[in-house]
Amino acid sequence: MEQRRFHVAVVGATGAVGQQMIQTLENKNFPVGTLTLLSSERSAGKKATFKGQEIEVQVAKPESFEGVDIALFSAGGSVSKALAPEAVKRGAIVIDNTSAFRMDENVPLVVPEVNEEDVKWHNGIIANPNCSTIQMVVALEPIRQAFGLKKVIVSTYQAVSGAGAQAIEELKAQSKAILNGEPFTPEILPVKSDRKHYQIAFNAVPQIDKFQDNGFTFEEIKMMNETKKIMHMPELQIAATCVRIPVITGHSESVYIEIEKEGVSAEDIKNILKNAPGVILQDDPTEQLYPMPADCVGKNDVFVGRIRKDLDRDDAFHLWIVSDNLLKGAAWNSVQIAESLLKLGLVK
Amino acid sequence: MEQRRFHVAVVGATGAVGQQMIQTLENKNFPVGTLTLLSSERSAGKKATFKGQEIEVQVAKPESFEGVDIALFSAGGSVSKALAPEAVKRGAIVIDNTSAFRMDENVPLVVPEVNEEDVKWHNGIIANPNCSTIQMVVALEPIRQAFGLKKVIVSTYQAVSGAGAQAIEELKAQSKAILNGEPFTPEILPVKSDRKHYQIAFNAVPQIDKFQDNGFTFEEIKMMNETKKIMHMPELQIAATCVRIPVITGHSESVYIEIEKEGVSAEDIKNILKNAPGVILQDDPTEQLYPMPADCVGKNDVFVGRIRKDLDRDDAFHLWIVSDNLLKGAAWNSVQIAESLLKLGLVK
Repeated sequence: MEQRRFHVAVVGATGAVGQQMIQTLENKNFPVGTLTLLSSERSAGKKATFKGQEIEVQVAKPESFEGVDIALFSAGGSVSKALAPEAVKRGAIVIDNTSAFRMDENVPLVVPEVNEEDVKWHNGIIANPNCSTIQMVVALEPIRQAFGLKKVIVSTYQAVSGAGAQAIEELKAQSKAILNGEPFTPEILPVKSDRKHYQIAFNAVPQIDKFQDNGFTFEEIKMMNETKKIMHMPELQIAATCVRIPVITGHSESVYIEIEKEGVSAEDIKNILKNAPGVILQDDPTEQLYPMPADCVGKNDVFVGRIRKDLDRDDAFHLWIVSDNLLKGAAWNSVQIAESLLKLGLVK
Repeated sequence: MEQRRFHVAVVGATGAVGQQMIQTLENKNFPVGTLTLLSSERSAGKKATFKGQEIEVQVAKPESFEGVDIALFSAGGSVSKALAPEAVKRGAIVIDNTSAFRMDENVPLVVPEVNEEDVKWHNGIIANPNCSTIQMVVALEPIRQAFGLKKVIVSTYQAVSGAGAQAIEELKAQSKAILNGEPFTPEILPVKSDRKHYQIAFNAVPQIDKFQDNGFTFEEIKMMNETKKIMHMPELQIAATCVRIPVITGHSESVYIEIEKEGVSAEDIKNILKNAPGVILQDDPTEQLYPMPADCVGKNDVFVGRIRKDLDRDDAFHLWIVSDNLLKGAAWNSVQIAESLLKLGLVK
């Protein structure tokens, strides 16, 4: 019997994440029958290659979703808000990589290693979490299952590709300018739509997304709220500090946790993570083995190392978590949600 | 009456910190009568400029310290271990910027804003703390004085100049190679004397100094132990994760603290830091104002911002602390200790 093939649409096909989505659909051999590539008017007409075939990118509009089975959105929150309901109206299931619907209680927020079952109660839209959230919950969920989880404090070291293709170009151009002693004007980072822009090359910028009234940035609030929703832990104590650093791809996180169980060793944590889905343990101080963003680029896994028991508290541990923010943090997690839909027979 | 002038020696005069020491002695108009510049054989013969005068760097040996009043050491732990006692024997007071004597109970470890009085019980050697420790305790001590301090969890974002002039060159050369698509071979970072070396350009490396048996690096242990000693808080709960990022100068720190007092607001913390010695508060989310390493270079102060009250605990706060690791983190703190010695009349 021939395997059923699906009509897939990628919205935001020319962006940093959209390009990785097309690549991931190909690499993972997702059963694509037709691939529709959509974008804003500005990028329409460009071409992308899928399995050796050139496909022209078209302007995204409501009618674009006629006959589409699965639509992967990654073109910004306002595009998702306008067009995701239109896609759903036409029978598509939307997997949305923006923050537009993530905290909507009618929309599941899914990381398949953590809460795959949540795709079952979707109402047309399934949200893909924030990149920095995804890699953290993939590492924390197996620890929670084994030992319980009470508290998380995370400081991030985030790559510029999380802010899109223009931010990548800005980091490269600025780095060159500084190395050559030439002038430059920051225009994209930290937040394109915010009023002030700062140097990112050879700098560290403690602002990702806009500030909220409580002094946290929206990126920090996203990490805190999304983690609670994905892990089904409204009572989890969690705080984030999100920082952009001059790395092109690969987010890193320094994470402190307090667990429920007493008497757990760092070795126990390592043993759990060694066999956890989607996780690769890289932790051997005697061999200077630990995860780094430069090593994780192009890989789908979440890498964990530097696992230490806190010297003051029996229930506390420190971890260092790294992953490719464009893959597990975005494109791969979205395609993985699509795979979960097929596996669970949810695409009509 | 003419002001007394002192014979000052700088050991490690050609290094990244040594050069800043010479500059800081000049900028702060320290009462230098004679300036003796010392180094290893490899660098001897080079020249440095102090107040418009060229001074030749000489090979450091025991006899170099005859007649020296104050010797600033920053040439690595083994040089300090060998030569600091020789300098003391000849009547000099040593201010040592290496880790050689920091945890020696006969040696005061001093950050003048925090524990200036400790210089009084010196026995010839006063230790200058680790760069990442200094900037943190300058920000935490005023909070401790006002509200008490129970717990600290810090994740660092450290600049390569903390690893010396060769590390700066490596970051620049590697950055150029990567931007031009050329090959490169890491040879200095993360730790020159360790077995493996890794890319630092466009990367984040969670190793500073060598690993200890408990899985923490020596840099992390230094931060933890030195903070307790400087703040006179052997009971403080403290844990550090130290990470090198591609910044040339300026260490940043994401710090979580728990205090003793209840009912304190983020505004209360800001008010304390606004008037704290050596601290500049840079904290206004509405103006996107927060400290960044690129802004702190060449300044002696410790910059603090992103001050938020934890959303789960009434006694917990988050801070972002940035300072020039070569100045307050090294050269300026050493010269400041020398100033304390003069102020307290301790140089015979």
